[in-house]
Amino acid sequence: MSTSTQADVNITKYLSANKERFMNELFDLLRIPSVSADSKFKADVQRTAEFLKEKLIAAGADKVEVCPTAGHPIVYGEKMVDPSWPTILVYGHYDVQPADPYELWNSPPFEPVIKDGKIYARGACDDKGQMYMHVKAFEALMANDSLSCNVKFMIEGEEEIGSDNLEIFVKNNKEKLKADMVLISDTSIISNETPSITVGLRGLSYLEVEVTGPNRDLHSGAYGGAVANPINVLCQMIASLHDENNRITIPGFYEKVQEMTEAYRKQLNESPFNLDEYKKELDIADVRGEKGYTTLERTGIRPTLDVNGIWGGYTGEGAKTVLPSKAFAKISMRLVPDQDNKEITELFTKHFKAIAPKSVKVEVRPHHGGQPAVVPTDSVEYRAASLAFEEAWGKTPVPTRDGGSIPIVSLFQKELGLNSVLLGFGLDTDAIHSPNENFGVFNFYKGIETIILFHKHYAACKK
Amino acid sequence: MSTSTQADVNITKYLSANKERFMNELFDLLRIPSVSADSKFKADVQRTAEFLKEKLIAAGADKVEVCPTAGHPIVYGEKMVDPSWPTILVYGHYDVQPADPYELWNSPPFEPVIKDGKIYARGACDDKGQMYMHVKAFEALMANDSLSCNVKFMIEGEEEIGSDNLEIFVKNNKEKLKADMVLISDTSIISNETPSITVGLRGLSYLEVEVTGPNRDLHSGAYGGAVANPINVLCQMIASLHDENNRITIPGFYEKVQEMTEAYRKQLNESPFNLDEYKKELDIADVRGEKGYTTLERTGIRPTLDVNGIWGGYTGEGAKTVLPSKAFAKISMRLVPDQDNKEITELFTKHFKAIAPKSVKVEVRPHHGGQPAVVPTDSVEYRAASLAFEEAWGKTPVPTRDGGSIPIVSLFQKELGLNSVLLGFGLDTDAIHSPNENFGVFNFYKGIETIILFHKHYAACKK
Repeated sequence: MSTSTQADVNITKYLSANKERFMNELFDLLRIPSVSADSKFKADVQRTAEFLKEKLIAAGADKVEVCPTAGHPIVYGEKMVDPSWPTILVYGHYDVQPADPYELWNSPPFEPVIKDGKIYARGACDDKGQMYMHVKAFEALMANDSLSCNVKFMIEGEEEIGSDNLEIFVKNNKEKLKADMVLISDTSIISNETPSITVGLRGLSYLEVEVTGPNRDLHSGAYGGAVANPINVLCQMIASLHDENNRITIPGFYEKVQEMTEAYRKQLNESPFNLDEYKKELDIADVRGEKGYTTLERTGIRPTLDVNGIWGGYTGEGAKTVLPSKAFAKISMRLVPDQDNKEITELFTKHFKAIAPKSVKVEVRPHHGGQPAVVPTDSVEYRAASLAFEEAWGKTPVPTRDGGSIPIVSLFQKELGLNSVLLGFGLDTDAIHSPNENFGVFNFYKGIETIILFHKHYAACKK
Repeated sequence: MSTSTQADVNITKYLSANKERFMNELFDLLRIPSVSADSKFKADVQRTAEFLKEKLIAAGADKVEVCPTAGHPIVYGEKMVDPSWPTILVYGHYDVQPADPYELWNSPPFEPVIKDGKIYARGACDDKGQMYMHVKAFEALMANDSLSCNVKFMIEGEEEIGSDNLEIFVKNNKEKLKADMVLISDTSIISNETPSITVGLRGLSYLEVEVTGPNRDLHSGAYGGAVANPINVLCQMIASLHDENNRITIPGFYEKVQEMTEAYRKQLNESPFNLDEYKKELDIADVRGEKGYTTLERTGIRPTLDVNGIWGGYTGEGAKTVLPSKAFAKISMRLVPDQDNKEITELFTKHFKAIAPKSVKVEVRPHHGGQPAVVPTDSVEYRAASLAFEEAWGKTPVPTRDGGSIPIVSLFQKELGLNSVLLGFGLDTDAIHSPNENFGVFNFYKGIETIILFHKHYAACKK
């Protein structure tokens, strides 16, 4: 570990002196319901972008702007001190998942509160809390004249809906986004006792399917048994997408899946994981997944297919004997290297239409997707991240594979030729995308520290 | 056919003189949203009962009362002219199905309009329109001093939710309900060219199922593939309820099903039915049902299992990558003689819990049910109905089996020892239980005529 300099001491003082203000600012950010998926929050999403613009300017960033897109805006800002310094492109997103079902929240999703050392609010972890750590780390470095890398910020408002316009923005602004690496905090660590760095991300193919039976809702007594019920048919079609070993039955689905070496699987399964605690924490009697793989492998190195939503017929109070005209489902597949999300989307669409009985009509509408990505562990970026964790947490972080998807990572590799470091500080218990999402107060402050140290070590490693 | 008397002529005059008023009254009745399944319409249901009370009194009924129950009230009224006359117990229901999805209605469900000779409104046919024909037929007979049978009215407000309180009412009022037969208009005829009388009804078992996976909504990236998704599991469980021949797989389900004789099936299949027109009218490329049976058999003499509603996960705008905690479905089974609805409900519950994987929890909540019933065609009641059709429609009606359920029919057989005559005037195209429910203006007026003639013929047949 590096010995701490006067600058380090000053920064430590600055952080503790401004602790409360940092938290208050995060609360203000969390109070704005920036739900990108739902158009009725459009003005709030815009407001969130403006909020970030102000904070970046206050922290000392130059050329700060709210860049309009065909959808929600992208916030950009930079501090180019010395062309000879390495440049870090910080990526994050200020949009959040829808908060429903509201009734399952113990406190309103957009009225942040701290309970038992955790900040409860939609976006507390994903990604407002984690993204804002970078803004505050930057502020602290600027205030103490301790910047050692040039910094660029690119914070989008459409990560939860597929980052379509970010892709266009990146393609159109390659010069402006020139950097040496991308720094992202939108992932988790194993635990506060066992810090880790995500080196693998699953890709995503998300679709919506619509099954139509008769041209109108029918009386299930008069027609039941003679006319195809689109709900029954949809259930049969969805059920057929997995075999008895929970393998996905779409022809060609596994064709490009990288089979991991025994050595790699052994290493992966050595990460601290307790199946009994996992089941207890989720209140499930058993786990369920692809035969022949452990839970860590199922979420880390294997692709999946999940129904994220389903609806059809009468879902109100009481009973209605209807044979509905239509049934719908939202289905997503998590992908691993080297599956291609566009190709998988096509395979799904082709297969799903092929298995539809003649008695129904089927439509498949792709929502969004992302490519799987793997981050090299033998890079300067990874080493700097590892050193930052060691200094801040006193432990060498474990490299892990995360089941989630950050499509942007492969986009940066492809369009900008940049490696990303996934310097995440969340926990699996943060309930992101769920009611009562939360983020540890400890993790928020520790994250800021670690990011500051990353800047220092990255500059040193690049020398 | 009987020659028409002066009384017949007077009644005919009376009907045409009061045509418009009858329709206006029906419109007033249809404007009250008496949705029994949804508690927010409770006051409207009560208002509908009061409306009927007034109309029965105005028509000349005695002892008219709105009888409170544990749920929605039952309207009773009677006219006992001569103890030596046969007594007809008229049964009907003034409650309606929920009207949603509202957006699929071409005109508001509770603002009746006449278009192309049809009355469009929720309840226009089922059963306000058909029930009210009896009130007007009674009025016409009274006004022209032409009653030939004693009449009792029992009109309930819970038919669409299982008639639970009617069952109690019937058991507690056997003396009051003493009669020679029950007359019900809540079924359909084959077409206006081919009148028919329903002689078979399917029973019903209606349940709601709840499948619970993890104790909270999860991120499908972090947990997908490792934790059972309750929607996927529910789909698999529902799919497994039918085999490749579309036979229901619940053990014991078919045990008590009466296999019909070849002769009976032959007769049933002789009813006018055009499969191509049927498919064209529903805009389906093919029908779908139990292997080895025709469409008329599938809806008439075979039991079925349909999902009437399903929901779980994120069903809003856009995409949410959630692995939900719960998934739900409303499932109903249509039953045929001699299946017992309580027994079938138990068989379903036992089986559905048995097929649940260890990774989920399952709850099954029975909603309501009804017994299948068959009406004898060799009875005085059936003969009178047949004669009434012959005189009013100039054609001998065809005996048919209806897929729907009127649980009350078997209740009357069991509790009151009375046969029912299902003197229905609806059409399969009336879209009952669906958006744009309608009832033919012709059928409304023709039905009143036919009911009046039924009274006359029944009195004569009983002599």
